[in-house]
Amino acid sequence: MRGVDPAWLPDGVFRPIGTRRTLIRGSGPLVDTVHTEVAAACERFGGSVERDASPGPYDLVLRLTGDDGSEAFSFERGDGRTTVTATGQPGLLYGLFHVVRFGEDAFGQDQPRTPVGPRSALRMLDHWDNVAVHPVMGQVERGYAGGSLFWRDGRARGDLERVRAYGRLLAACGINAVAVNNVNVHATEARLLTDRIGEVAAIAGALRPYGIRTHLSVTFAAPVVLGGLPSADPLDEAVRAWWARATAGVYAAIPDFGGFVVKADSEGQPGPFAYGRTHADGANMLAAALEPYGGTVHWRAFVYDHRQDWRDRTTDRARAAYDHFVPLDGEFAANAVLQVKHGPLDFQVREPVSPLIGAMPGTRLAVELQATQEYTGQQRHVCWLGPMWSEVLRSPVEQGLSVGELARGGLVAVSNVGDDPFWTGHPLAQANLYTFGRLAWQPDADPAGLLGEWIRLTFPGAPERLAGGLRAVLEGSWRTYEKYTAPLGVGFMVQPGHHYGPSVDGYEYSPWGTYHFADRDGLGVDRSRATGTGYTGQYGKPWSEVYESTDTCPDELLLFFHHVAYDHMLHSGRTVIQHIYDTHFEGVEEVEAAQEVWASLAGLVDPARHARVAELFEEQLRSAREWRDQVNSYFFRKSGVPDAHGRRIY
Amino acid sequence: MRGVDPAWLPDGVFRPIGTRRTLIRGSGPLVDTVHTEVAAACERFGGSVERDASPGPYDLVLRLTGDDGSEAFSFERGDGRTTVTATGQPGLLYGLFHVVRFGEDAFGQDQPRTPVGPRSALRMLDHWDNVAVHPVMGQVERGYAGGSLFWRDGRARGDLERVRAYGRLLAACGINAVAVNNVNVHATEARLLTDRIGEVAAIAGALRPYGIRTHLSVTFAAPVVLGGLPSADPLDEAVRAWWARATAGVYAAIPDFGGFVVKADSEGQPGPFAYGRTHADGANMLAAALEPYGGTVHWRAFVYDHRQDWRDRTTDRARAAYDHFVPLDGEFAANAVLQVKHGPLDFQVREPVSPLIGAMPGTRLAVELQATQEYTGQQRHVCWLGPMWSEVLRSPVEQGLSVGELARGGLVAVSNVGDDPFWTGHPLAQANLYTFGRLAWQPDADPAGLLGEWIRLTFPGAPERLAGGLRAVLEGSWRTYEKYTAPLGVGFMVQPGHHYGPSVDGYEYSPWGTYHFADRDGLGVDRSRATGTGYTGQYGKPWSEVYESTDTCPDELLLFFHHVAYDHMLHSGRTVIQHIYDTHFEGVEEVEAAQEVWASLAGLVDPARHARVAELFEEQLRSAREWRDQVNSYFFRKSGVPDAHGRRIY
Repeated sequence: MRGVDPAWLPDGVFRPIGTRRTLIRGSGPLVDTVHTEVAAACERFGGSVERDASPGPYDLVLRLTGDDGSEAFSFERGDGRTTVTATGQPGLLYGLFHVVRFGEDAFGQDQPRTPVGPRSALRMLDHWDNVAVHPVMGQVERGYAGGSLFWRDGRARGDLERVRAYGRLLAACGINAVAVNNVNVHATEARLLTDRIGEVAAIAGALRPYGIRTHLSVTFAAPVVLGGLPSADPLDEAVRAWWARATAGVYAAIPDFGGFVVKADSEGQPGPFAYGRTHADGANMLAAALEPYGGTVHWRAFVYDHRQDWRDRTTDRARAAYDHFVPLDGEFAANAVLQVKHGPLDFQVREPVSPLIGAMPGTRLAVELQATQEYTGQQRHVCWLGPMWSEVLRSPVEQGLSVGELARGGLVAVSNVGDDPFWTGHPLAQANLYTFGRLAWQPDADPAGLLGEWIRLTFPGAPERLAGGLRAVLEGSWRTYEKYTAPLGVGFMVQPGHHYGPSVDGYEYSPWGTYHFADRDGLGVDRSRATGTGYTGQYGKPWSEVYESTDTCPDELLLFFHHVAYDHMLHSGRTVIQHIYDTHFEGVEEVEAAQEVWASLAGLVDPARHARVAELFEEQLRSAREWRDQVNSYFFRKSGVPDAHGRRIY
Repeated sequence: MRGVDPAWLPDGVFRPIGTRRTLIRGSGPLVDTVHTEVAAACERFGGSVERDASPGPYDLVLRLTGDDGSEAFSFERGDGRTTVTATGQPGLLYGLFHVVRFGEDAFGQDQPRTPVGPRSALRMLDHWDNVAVHPVMGQVERGYAGGSLFWRDGRARGDLERVRAYGRLLAACGINAVAVNNVNVHATEARLLTDRIGEVAAIAGALRPYGIRTHLSVTFAAPVVLGGLPSADPLDEAVRAWWARATAGVYAAIPDFGGFVVKADSEGQPGPFAYGRTHADGANMLAAALEPYGGTVHWRAFVYDHRQDWRDRTTDRARAAYDHFVPLDGEFAANAVLQVKHGPLDFQVREPVSPLIGAMPGTRLAVELQATQEYTGQQRHVCWLGPMWSEVLRSPVEQGLSVGELARGGLVAVSNVGDDPFWTGHPLAQANLYTFGRLAWQPDADPAGLLGEWIRLTFPGAPERLAGGLRAVLEGSWRTYEKYTAPLGVGFMVQPGHHYGPSVDGYEYSPWGTYHFADRDGLGVDRSRATGTGYTGQYGKPWSEVYESTDTCPDELLLFFHHVAYDHMLHSGRTVIQHIYDTHFEGVEEVEAAQEVWASLAGLVDPARHARVAELFEEQLRSAREWRDQVNSYFFRKSGVPDAHGRRIY
């Protein structure tokens, strides 16, 4: 698409297919999509494509042998031919992109027939896009990549070419679901469910050719605000009937509609608590409305008291999701998915894995990640989140949970995409979107391998100097970001409201429940059972024991679980205060080094992309220095402990 | 005026005049205003009023003996007759309100002829009202009393009855000038100078009958943004010609126009620095344009670096106005007034008096106060500022400056009025507006006496229990506010942006130049010559010596001038840290006591007023407790010193 970055689908990645002879067998709309892709590649590179022709000499056969809707496929190479076999149309589409990813290797050595399929049936992006520009949050809440792909000036965009291009990119990394509006559902957005469903249907039509089902965020209060009912009580028959009618209307417009996303009783959104009902009651009412059509309700577990008193150290926001939802395990309908943020707080650069994961065997959980970099540099900082996500997704497995169980409800990320020409504001933030899609497909994939894939696809034919430079810039960037921001898992310390840049006490005396309790002797949150909030007791063994003791708690989470003295010795052999100083100096040095690497890649990267990233590195470096100096000064002023290496602290 | 609080001009205060026989001698528009006032009182209370009739039996004679424009008058009582004599129309108007203020006493014992007149020729209110609602600052910047009296929906209000009522209230307390728009002049407001001057003229027409001249805030960049010139260089002849033409247009529309108010080179506003010119160059250019018409330019001295680096302890925002302007003394034109905030920072609850006052003998200075309670509780807290203003205005006198010198350029306050039915949001905040007007007229007046006046006028016939209760609630409220907010003159510690409520570190790592430098050992800003920023050297003796030493620096300003240890002993006999704890507990207790007093006045105050104040006391108490607990916790965590009295600190 002209004027828009091709991301991980530049023309060049289709050369191996486009120069060869391809046969496509089977029919259906997604098979047509496959054909369109191959035909375009052949037109560009001189190859050929046939549909359902008699066997001739073909280099690639893409064959559909059924129509069961499966997303899996098999891949084999033999007798000079590469074959993808699928029993469902989506499988054939994913098989095509599998071949694209493999490139020339897909046509190299023989390979036995290998089944390939996603570990999770739902691989979803939630867009926090507003239809009407919100006076504070703007067009996209927590969006750092321009406007919305879907909405502009209070309504759906008329030209959906960009949405189609987005769907194509998503299919190529394995995404199969998109929620098109913000979970904070304001007045305009509420109406998408009813009289404005046509706008959603148009978007769904643009995404459908790439196997993507469209979802809608709805307000729990819809029967009141849209239907004029006196109540939204989920056990009220009139309310249930209203939702049934509304849902029928949605499916009349969008027969393959995916379902609803709901943020209820959270940060001011309405919910079942107002009627003395449980969140299972609320979710099941919507599940019942969706059930006849095969739809799913995604019910967010992000429920906590955001009017907390900072004076009260017994209330612990980290406990909230578990305390609210574990007692409801087994009560949710089969087509209700409980969508759980990966950590107990809110997408901080370092949190333990949410104790809900693994604690609700009778409930379909989906793990929610955040691709949009709200707390991780807002797409002005390079911060590739692959390693963090991989740790999150592997951790439950280490607890004995299978990846299949983990992913039963799906994997969800808040999208980092807008109408920016590079899609993600920071061109290198595309790697986060790609990595999420691939990890959602295969949660135990090696993130470094996925980064390599992204580099090969985005910079086809990149010389090793470029590929190595990109790895150097991206691979450690999450840990670099962690180093210069809030230390040792303590979280927050950001500017209130917009969440960009440092403010060590920014949330310390606020109602949001995110505190560090730093005093002249030490800092951190005591969440132990022995002397703290008892949060460690929400974990199964061994983690409940590991986290309980400062002897065994991992360094990087120490301040999340314990309040310790500044001279507490970490496993690393450094004191807490010296760790704070060291990591903050190191973090800035690492940004400086990455900036130099990027500068050295000039000439190997197209000028527009190189210039945009170079400019953003200036801001990242400025911001990293600000973080370093504020955090170090704050803790020096409080602790009085000088830096062991005598570096400048203000 | 129906639906609007009569403030200090309820009908009852006109009873002494309205029941008597009055003769008015002289003619002119302000004499007509006097007649209208007396006639309305007589119609209400049965008295009589004649104009220029032959001497008959009169109780009150208001006589104009010339037309020299003087605001002074004489007052005498003898032979059963009260006589006000004025040589100018404004004097007659002020004489009338003088009689109103005296009430029955004006018709009691004989009094010899006494001259009465203002100490300052200019007694002005600046409105920070925007014409177009600003996306962040709203209709009125730092306004806490609803919308603007003058502007709504992007233009002047069509109905100016409220503006006339405002002018009447202002005349009754001695104000004679109003600037009708914000000193931060945005795009819409810029045009008031040229094609939208008609809207200003309409407002001027409504204020004129009460002797009030209208002023306009203008942007220094007007020749560029309105005139299309390439430059706004004040020495450029084309620029000077543009201003001359624009000013001629203003006077064609408003013959008695007062002049321009300019905020230049400050917080992002344009100014002469861009052209390598001085602020005298800038001000004098506008003075030259105004001079033929008798107008004045009010040039604000609020010029400082708002992009300061918190790491740099040598830059001192408090020094900025003196450093910028004192070298220019003697260079400003005769009709240029340098408008100086009373303190060196920004309207904090406690600041030393600006060292500019008294340091520029060759320049007409006006002292700027802030009636709108930006930093003093935003008209949700009772905070009567009379004692603070009186201290400010007496202080230079103690330095040997005459009140006349002090007030040569005038006294200005930022208005606290909006379209709220009580004018000022908090009904008791009316006392601030009244007190400002009266202090502007007579800077050495006893503020407690002015409070008594305000009570007598606003609550005519109030029983002593009510009057005493009002005094109890208001008289000490400024010191109460000081107690529970930032201690010992250190300032700020407010929430960034809106400036309401506590945030001890809110501005500590910001670019605004307002820091407290608290660490585990102590806090405060070293502004001494010996070891600090040298700011104390901007004062003449004895203050330069008094402030230089912690031995002599007044307790209440100690942290403004010095960085001291928490255990530093104050003159009060308390340590700094114990002072912080004590005052914060005391402040809340004093709010609780005031709230109880107010509650006891139910039945003595009209129900709407009583209810509004009672409701606001709830918020004030909540906020005061929040201040107490955040400030005490912050300093306990930092100092580790327990409260000597073992009170609860979180």
